[in-house]
Amino acid sequence: MITHLITIGDELLIGQTVNTNAAWIGQQLALLGIKVNYSITISDTKKDILEALAYANSKADLVLITGGLGPTKDDITKQTLCEFFDTKLVLNVEIAAKIEGYFNAIGKPFLEVNRQQAMLPGSCEILQNEVGTASGMWFTKDNTSFISMPGVPYEMKHIMETGVLPKVKDTFQTKDLFHYTVMTQGIGESFLAERIKDWEDDLRANDMDLAYLPSPGLVRLRISSSKGNKEAVTKKAKQLFELVPKYAYGVEQQTLAEVVGNLLKEKNKTISFAESCTGGYLSHLITATPGSSAYYEGSIICYSYDIKEKELNVPSSILVNKGAVSEQVVEILSEELLKKYNTDYSIAISGIAGPDGGTEEKPVGTVWVAVRNANKVVTKRFTFGNNRERNIQKSALTALNMVRLLILETEYESLPTAI
Amino acid sequence: MITHLITIGDELLIGQTVNTNAAWIGQQLALLGIKVNYSITISDTKKDILEALAYANSKADLVLITGGLGPTKDDITKQTLCEFFDTKLVLNVEIAAKIEGYFNAIGKPFLEVNRQQAMLPGSCEILQNEVGTASGMWFTKDNTSFISMPGVPYEMKHIMETGVLPKVKDTFQTKDLFHYTVMTQGIGESFLAERIKDWEDDLRANDMDLAYLPSPGLVRLRISSSKGNKEAVTKKAKQLFELVPKYAYGVEQQTLAEVVGNLLKEKNKTISFAESCTGGYLSHLITATPGSSAYYEGSIICYSYDIKEKELNVPSSILVNKGAVSEQVVEILSEELLKKYNTDYSIAISGIAGPDGGTEEKPVGTVWVAVRNANKVVTKRFTFGNNRERNIQKSALTALNMVRLLILETEYESLPTAI
Repeated sequence: MITHLITIGDELLIGQTVNTNAAWIGQQLALLGIKVNYSITISDTKKDILEALAYANSKADLVLITGGLGPTKDDITKQTLCEFFDTKLVLNVEIAAKIEGYFNAIGKPFLEVNRQQAMLPGSCEILQNEVGTASGMWFTKDNTSFISMPGVPYEMKHIMETGVLPKVKDTFQTKDLFHYTVMTQGIGESFLAERIKDWEDDLRANDMDLAYLPSPGLVRLRISSSKGNKEAVTKKAKQLFELVPKYAYGVEQQTLAEVVGNLLKEKNKTISFAESCTGGYLSHLITATPGSSAYYEGSIICYSYDIKEKELNVPSSILVNKGAVSEQVVEILSEELLKKYNTDYSIAISGIAGPDGGTEEKPVGTVWVAVRNANKVVTKRFTFGNNRERNIQKSALTALNMVRLLILETEYESLPTAI
Repeated sequence: MITHLITIGDELLIGQTVNTNAAWIGQQLALLGIKVNYSITISDTKKDILEALAYANSKADLVLITGGLGPTKDDITKQTLCEFFDTKLVLNVEIAAKIEGYFNAIGKPFLEVNRQQAMLPGSCEILQNEVGTASGMWFTKDNTSFISMPGVPYEMKHIMETGVLPKVKDTFQTKDLFHYTVMTQGIGESFLAERIKDWEDDLRANDMDLAYLPSPGLVRLRISSSKGNKEAVTKKAKQLFELVPKYAYGVEQQTLAEVVGNLLKEKNKTISFAESCTGGYLSHLITATPGSSAYYEGSIICYSYDIKEKELNVPSSILVNKGAVSEQVVEILSEELLKKYNTDYSIAISGIAGPDGGTEEKPVGTVWVAVRNANKVVTKRFTFGNNRERNIQKSALTALNMVRLLILETEYESLPTAI
């Protein structure tokens, strides 16, 4: 079975929008054992859309299309689909009534552009959109199924979940592709490869594949079997946790914040953060997980000297003599916060995110992290690099892994995360 | 001129990695007036790579390729390029010395996998990679230029900036494509379209194009001219700011946090945040901008009742009787924080991000925001929807637009941001 994905929109080609739809659709189909073989992004032009449809028709069994279904004048996908499938737009009275009902309910006028959204191709099956005005459409031509959906991510996701995925599951034989991913933090790709060399050779000798997927602060290891051998894959994954326990923290789409949260919940412990250079990003990561209020109390984002001094009792002499980015400061911040917010664990981070503020002794990317409970504090200095965004990401992830190991009563150890 | 982008990697097809490289490359080329016409993502397999190269060779003048150049066994792009361009891998002694030097400098062993990175195709021009071990490669065949780069984003960006973009600029005639984007917050796509209908008709009548690009809480309006008419485009953009001043907040890639930061800096004012449901995301947005310490003092992430009560003096009776998600609570949080952190402006946000915690009276997505200075407080209730991540994003962006209007001494007004 061959699957094509066509994402339409100049905003994707000129990079104004990152193509998260392609990633999400790929994930959802992979869960059904269907692999996207070919993903193309094209312009909002009739010529390019018609070419991509014809190419997909000649190669693929299943074609998913997003984009160009909005109510505004730049959206031309619906008209182009009518041309390709040799059909016409007709008013769908049921859809028209639903859209009008929505606008009435929120007390807003039902505009002509909204009514146009109920004009739909005659020859397709309509896929209901309960969260927007652009309906999904399922066409069939020469044994190829074409599914067109809006490009707005939550509308597309709604139509996928309620209309497309159940029908795709019924219609297409799933193939025996099985992936399982182990997440690691704190070790660079080549050092990790060296550490797990024998394990990897054994994996390949047993007809499985391995991919290294680095992102700032993390390396994901995707083990796959094209024979659907789930047992062998999960056995190898389990071995990996024994091989590199300080780095391997979770599986599949698990975030480090989620793993730390689960540990805290299990042990009925709480946590708080004092963030300087990460500026709230660590707090954002922990609160991205639903239910995080069970273990996360709160944070002080102590960006200025004043807040560090007045709210967390860092002596001004230490700020002046040692600098805000110092072992002493993160020790004090974590200790004072633990008392003030009355939590079982605390994390403090202070660093130079960049691009300015570096010195010879403390270049941009220098970050101090302290993780602590009532009995123990672990502090560590890192030198991450020149990029502000990456420094913030790596600092927060590293701090989470440090606290994970503290909760597990394991020593922290780091290896270069990138050259 | 036709440009193809080929991104290689199963992680992109199965959605484990979002294709941010494609977006970034599209942006950079657009800045040179070069449009990516066709962007395809394919597997790490020889057959798919060879097919994509052959197709690009038949259609495109410029082909950019990312991925598959890592030191691990799953990376096969380099070998496949050798086959396509009929050349062989040879040891590049200069590159080998550089990679070895790096590992010596950080006191780590120079591994065999790292030495393999210096084996490079004989017939290409090498593009130096100062931040990693995978070199870029520039091949030419039948008047088509092919550029291969690693998939790790910061390595690819480095090679693009130092090697690719300067040479692309010299080699290819740029075409007269001009884009300019106006950013809006707080109004949904169809309501915006209705408000600016006459302006949009006039724009189209004058040979320009308009695209509506919605994302959670924002709609970007991209005005373009294929005749390179910068003056006409920027004039229309200026009119838009006069037409919808409460929503239009910035241009191009400007973030709302950056715009608010610039306003504060101009007026020499400071700001602080009390965040409950946004959990640090608002602080993260403001500190994502370099130099934000000039106006941002810090935040209290008051996730628990305890922190709201003890640190920000919200009376327990109000928390019990009115609930943490109430007008009174955000009023008190913003007022107490303004005093405690001694800033000119403060923002407080309290809401039900979801998926749990909603009631009939206060469903998931209910959010109260207060923005304040010494003289004035503006509070407002929103009902954003069911998605936790979007509720957090929309709450933070809405709060930033509210404080932008308070700083500008303009009334806030909101219209539905999505149906």
